[in-house]
Amino acid sequence: MAQYVLYNCGPSGNCYKVRLFAALAGIPLKILEVDLAGGEHRQPAFTALNPWQQVPVLQDGEIVIWDSQAILVYLAERYAEPEWCPPDPLSRARVMQWLSVSANEIQHGPADARLVRKFAYPLNYDHAVRLSSHVLTTIDAHLADREWLALHLPSIADCAAYPYIALAPEGGISLEPYDAIRAWMARIEALPGYVPIGS
Amino acid sequence: MAQYVLYNCGPSGNCYKVRLFAALAGIPLKILEVDLAGGEHRQPAFTALNPWQQVPVLQDGEIVIWDSQAILVYLAERYAEPEWCPPDPLSRARVMQWLSVSANEIQHGPADARLVRKFAYPLNYDHAVRLSSHVLTTIDAHLADREWLALHLPSIADCAAYPYIALAPEGGISLEPYDAIRAWMARIEALPGYVPIGS
Repeated sequence: MAQYVLYNCGPSGNCYKVRLFAALAGIPLKILEVDLAGGEHRQPAFTALNPWQQVPVLQDGEIVIWDSQAILVYLAERYAEPEWCPPDPLSRARVMQWLSVSANEIQHGPADARLVRKFAYPLNYDHAVRLSSHVLTTIDAHLADREWLALHLPSIADCAAYPYIALAPEGGISLEPYDAIRAWMARIEALPGYVPIGS
Repeated sequence: MAQYVLYNCGPSGNCYKVRLFAALAGIPLKILEVDLAGGEHRQPAFTALNPWQQVPVLQDGEIVIWDSQAILVYLAERYAEPEWCPPDPLSRARVMQWLSVSANEIQHGPADARLVRKFAYPLNYDHAVRLSSHVLTTIDAHLADREWLALHLPSIADCAAYPYIALAPEGGISLEPYDAIRAWMARIEALPGYVPIGS
């Protein structure tokens, strides 16, 4: 099977979304580390791949995809079993709801809190903590009577949402109050092929 | 043709994404106004539809979809010509890239700036203006040699990105420096069925 190149940064939860899904779906990735601390993502060689100057980026031959959610959609539809992103309109919409939450609310809640605490980004920590509380409370209620976020089986929606929720404690946000979220995380961590972020 | 119910708020750019796409694709919508000023979105009848307490929400019989991007995916795949969201993996990924940008960068740049200026939301205006400059500069460069954001024809990606870019001046952000964006906006506004936000 061919290998696809993932431009990666180890501690990035957005990159981990892709590595996690690829591991669960059995898709081999060739990992290329991008030196964010050294500013490699702002150099012309990288901005030609992604003008947003962000990892992850996927390269599959001539095809280049940026944005972690878009990479999940591409890999799922081209190389994975259809269960990960089923083709019917309602399943697609259910998955899309959680890809949006991952790109917006989870990013600006727990992910931003972690950027401040762990990487000293100049963002508003209190705002990120307040948003995290709203996000985690809403997701916990959603998961109270569901096994997976979007569908009856694990999907790319779970792979998109899991990393920055699991990493929330690195942003000073405890997951202790959220029983349903912790049970959902345990289900993901028990899936065959699961890899933690540091692997 | 059946009508689908859109829970709507007139000035919301996220609701306008759906009204614009439905108008362009010829999908009839029954519009129900939600009284955000009166807090209707925080009442149990509404939060049962959308626990995120946000408009838009689409109701199609028993099916309820929240999140503007997810509603675009659902309507396009169920009721529109395939050109609006083509089924091949690469097209899906290209569209998804711009749905993520619409949910994240455009939302927290020009849309947040407008929330502060027009609706007095307690957000960081300077941060929104800085992000807007980055977002609009990046999109303008992307559109310099393209007619549409994601594909060779207009897609739901254009419908997702257009509203809060077109509304940027209401947030105090001029579009004057962005020639390619203004040309793209004119192409959207010339599409058969186009409706402005206030229609």
